[in-house]
Amino acid sequence: MARDVILREVGLRDGLQSVATFVETADKLDWIRREAAAGVAEIEVTSYVPPKLLPQFVDAEAVTTESLRIPGLTVAALVPNSRGAQRGLELGVHKINFVMSVSETHNMKNVRRSREESLADFRNMAGLARAQPEATRPVLCGGLATALGCSYEGDVPVADVVRYAVALAEAGADELIIPDTVGYANPALVRRVFKAVLAEVGALPVAAHFHDTRGTGLANLLAALDCGVRAFDASLGGLGGCPFAPGATGNIVMEDAAYMLESMGVDTGIDLAALLEVREVLRRAIPDVTLHGGLARAGLPRGFTPASARLAA
Amino acid sequence: MARDVILREVGLRDGLQSVATFVETADKLDWIRREAAAGVAEIEVTSYVPPKLLPQFVDAEAVTTESLRIPGLTVAALVPNSRGAQRGLELGVHKINFVMSVSETHNMKNVRRSREESLADFRNMAGLARAQPEATRPVLCGGLATALGCSYEGDVPVADVVRYAVALAEAGADELIIPDTVGYANPALVRRVFKAVLAEVGALPVAAHFHDTRGTGLANLLAALDCGVRAFDASLGGLGGCPFAPGATGNIVMEDAAYMLESMGVDTGIDLAALLEVREVLRRAIPDVTLHGGLARAGLPRGFTPASARLAA
Repeated sequence: MARDVILREVGLRDGLQSVATFVETADKLDWIRREAAAGVAEIEVTSYVPPKLLPQFVDAEAVTTESLRIPGLTVAALVPNSRGAQRGLELGVHKINFVMSVSETHNMKNVRRSREESLADFRNMAGLARAQPEATRPVLCGGLATALGCSYEGDVPVADVVRYAVALAEAGADELIIPDTVGYANPALVRRVFKAVLAEVGALPVAAHFHDTRGTGLANLLAALDCGVRAFDASLGGLGGCPFAPGATGNIVMEDAAYMLESMGVDTGIDLAALLEVREVLRRAIPDVTLHGGLARAGLPRGFTPASARLAA
Repeated sequence: MARDVILREVGLRDGLQSVATFVETADKLDWIRREAAAGVAEIEVTSYVPPKLLPQFVDAEAVTTESLRIPGLTVAALVPNSRGAQRGLELGVHKINFVMSVSETHNMKNVRRSREESLADFRNMAGLARAQPEATRPVLCGGLATALGCSYEGDVPVADVVRYAVALAEAGADELIIPDTVGYANPALVRRVFKAVLAEVGALPVAAHFHDTRGTGLANLLAALDCGVRAFDASLGGLGGCPFAPGATGNIVMEDAAYMLESMGVDTGIDLAALLEVREVLRRAIPDVTLHGGLARAGLPRGFTPASARLAA
């Protein structure tokens, strides 16, 4: 299906890593299968980190393997280092999302390495990926946490973001992602950062990852969309947060992001009614966690037409 | 103070009209005084409707008179007809916000008149205002409810919005406001409607009024800002809704709107810390009503600089 924009579910990773309750593998797979059936084309299903560090992802292998059976779904996983990437290669995951922080302090707190050490490890990772036969080689996505602000360092220089974006591209990233890790972004900053990065990395796709910490999540999405960004992370019910970033609550709400884009005539390939029903899985699996979302509360406007129906008309 | 953008508090009218509890006059004035002190330049303090219809506004005279004593504050009030406007003229209110609906069905439900009858009454109102001595003549603002969609009629033709905008301008409006009465707006529609209206009404200021019903409120604000709109309605804690529009919950949150603009370097004249403290008035006066807002939950980013400080630097 041709989509104008890809919305990528990250709730299973960015959402669940801040949820204390272990969500059963069967529930995770139910979530993944139903969301894929609702038209979500790409899901970050887990994180390849040591279970001691994040017990939520102890079932990373089973979740990956079962997700890979879902027709048409791009299965992605987060990795903090090349050990994680090696696990991804062995499992045959479609996409490996590596993340390092532009802020040195945040990188030290998050992965206990300097930025240069992270970058060197990414080069190593890219070598491992290139050694794979082309048919099973995963897409390598380079992420730049805190690119839009850091809860330790405050403002992050745009020049640093560009420098590490170019470094990741040169090291072999197939695509980049710029996350607002701690919810500091505003639309003006989004435009500055994405324009600067897009100008330097040529044709490399650049995705965006926003949190709705201070209410500006969808405005930031709009600003990035205006810059030409065509892939966005989001999470069902706005689940999310970063355990190393105090006060950072919630990814942008998948349902509201899809609704906004569809109402603008931007085809996401997502069936909004079917998507809303997937919230049921979360209500059952993590009943104590608040689910966010305006669309779930208010429903679709009278006479609402999804983008695909408009294009066909 | 020179501001780039004016944020106008409408919670005392649009917010309280959907709150069953009568808020004491002293609490309303506390809210108004503290928010004015925090730098909010314009407040819609009440509505001149028959108290039988909306008992919340039984104290409209006292609230208006006392608000007019606050130095530097523009005191506005909503009126549905020229009887309400007459009350405003007698009280010496600074701005009279007239509202009619672009959707015929919504206008009939809301004020029990056809659009043409509302328009004729606005002409009458403009005549009353013109008969005032210039020094005490209020600013007349013409509002077009449901301009961005109607919960009865669905899509509202852009041509109708333009037609009634031009009609209000010709009838004597000093400024216009385009409200998303029922929370149906999306950024693409906002751009279409505001561009079309701005192209036809020349230099007349056009304000925007968004609800955050489906999470897109601040994205809509950004879209209107990009079109050149420089005045926006908002309400403290996102209080609001329309009693005649089922499912329409909440104006955009004043604190988050001010934060987003300030973080973009757009000067609102508002002291965010002082603004956040005003929520205390609502927590005390209407403890059962949920207050919304990301900034109130997460606080300001580390190293945050308001727009005015940046300009001075």
